[in-house]
Amino acid sequence: MSLVVCGSMAFDAIETPFGKSDKIIGGAGTYIAWCASNFTPVKQISVVGGDFPQAELDALTARGVNLEGVQIKHDEKTFFWSGRYHMDMNTRDTLDTQLNVLANFQPVVPESYQDCEFLMLGNLVPAVQLSVIEQLKNRPKLIVMDTMNFWMEVAMEDLLKVIARVDVLLVNDSEARQLSGEYSLVKAAQAIMKMGPKYLIIKKGEHGALLFHENKVFHAAALPLEEVFDPTGAGDTFAGGFIGHIARTKDISFDNMKTAIIVGSAMASYCVEKFGTARLREINAADIHARINEFVQLVNFDIRLAE
Amino acid sequence: MSLVVCGSMAFDAIETPFGKSDKIIGGAGTYIAWCASNFTPVKQISVVGGDFPQAELDALTARGVNLEGVQIKHDEKTFFWSGRYHMDMNTRDTLDTQLNVLANFQPVVPESYQDCEFLMLGNLVPAVQLSVIEQLKNRPKLIVMDTMNFWMEVAMEDLLKVIARVDVLLVNDSEARQLSGEYSLVKAAQAIMKMGPKYLIIKKGEHGALLFHENKVFHAAALPLEEVFDPTGAGDTFAGGFIGHIARTKDISFDNMKTAIIVGSAMASYCVEKFGTARLREINAADIHARINEFVQLVNFDIRLAE
Repeated sequence: MSLVVCGSMAFDAIETPFGKSDKIIGGAGTYIAWCASNFTPVKQISVVGGDFPQAELDALTARGVNLEGVQIKHDEKTFFWSGRYHMDMNTRDTLDTQLNVLANFQPVVPESYQDCEFLMLGNLVPAVQLSVIEQLKNRPKLIVMDTMNFWMEVAMEDLLKVIARVDVLLVNDSEARQLSGEYSLVKAAQAIMKMGPKYLIIKKGEHGALLFHENKVFHAAALPLEEVFDPTGAGDTFAGGFIGHIARTKDISFDNMKTAIIVGSAMASYCVEKFGTARLREINAADIHARINEFVQLVNFDIRLAE
Repeated sequence: MSLVVCGSMAFDAIETPFGKSDKIIGGAGTYIAWCASNFTPVKQISVVGGDFPQAELDALTARGVNLEGVQIKHDEKTFFWSGRYHMDMNTRDTLDTQLNVLANFQPVVPESYQDCEFLMLGNLVPAVQLSVIEQLKNRPKLIVMDTMNFWMEVAMEDLLKVIARVDVLLVNDSEARQLSGEYSLVKAAQAIMKMGPKYLIIKKGEHGALLFHENKVFHAAALPLEEVFDPTGAGDTFAGGFIGHIARTKDISFDNMKTAIIVGSAMASYCVEKFGTARLREINAADIHARINEFVQLVNFDIRLAE
């Protein structure tokens, strides 16, 4: 039984108020793999061009990421994205997008991935996400899906088809409002859960995240940070920590999802400390444990005093 | 030993996307008194005109609010504010402000208030707040101060004098940034605590609140609500719950302040359910207890699963 991750592997070039990166390794699938592999082995589905560094693939393999499902198109180029963050670090402009190998990506699920127990669909073309679900002979125990507003604008019909097939949907607050047409996040969550997912996670960036299920809600704080150096990949890293914890514990209860959200938040708080995946490559189990304990301190209170 | 509250008592006329109120009872001091009196007796300092209803004064007295420090200017009119909330309920336009009795308010601290152990300075002219501090012969055990961006624009010098004298300052996130000149709330908090207060509470509306002290931080979630009917007075009610809990327990430790913030958040979540103070007048101890338990459910998680 295993965790299967589908997501882009890419080159990014990032500008922030703090500096400018070279062309560095990025992509939702990359962030998820670097993060989730702290908790459990990963079986990766993606596509890269001949220009993608072998050293990066080797580094992922060394961390327990199985790359059998990663297609290498030797005559093509890897997906490239370039963006510039504004001063508030919450908004950004896309400077350049070159789809390259992603333009005609047909994912192939290897036979050895058919033991998939947990499936993480990173933000990607909804048709690709759907194809992965359909290639699996047995339905995974839990399917988690990330998406973004772009697909609501250009591929809503496909998007709704995937949403109807997943257990947990991850969106940010403005995407939840756009998808549901409701301003209140409580009403938005109820509307979105009627579209299929039994669980909805609404990411609110520096304001934390909300987990909805039936009539229950859980709020996870984000750690207040002195500086956010580069927010790229924070949402993907959050997803990687969430599914990584779930896959490691093999417990899909609401209570364990709360803990998984804290783990995802802790991992995302590391991600933003350096450009790209740099910080995720440095941290170890002790770092992760220490950061999770900071989250406990952040929100822990003794309510008996109020009784 | 007692809780002394200084704050405006006023008439408000409110328009929201959900409706329009008549001229109703409002004012920071009123909200604080209605809220804090659930937890402890209150000694009120304020000023009203001859048009302020005796029935309202009687209702406050019946709840344990001592009005000896409330001046009644029979030949003048009560402070009046009128505003209209935008669709997001986070922003509002002021339609009308009539200072009336507030224009020349000289607070007088009655002799019977000199046992003040806890002082809550509601949002008001900084010079009035300072005058109350200076009239107290013994420094209270804890001075909590609320303020707003308006005073940063028109009375910054006076404002800084008061801030230097208090223990806990309450501001919202944009006010913290304005006061400190720092965008990061962590840096803003460090800068503001250098101005005097040992504790800083940053209110983030629907995103909850942060409590800073030395190098510690606590995050309290806000309850996700289906609808916010009228946000007027939510910040004052939060302050009333905070100081009410502190005064009841007589415990000014950081740990008890965390609990006090949860109590304040619970009270504020009731306040916004109806126009003005209407909802605060209805709720009882059982309602408050139930809502506090909702906050426990909202943020409670079992981190042992992540170890």
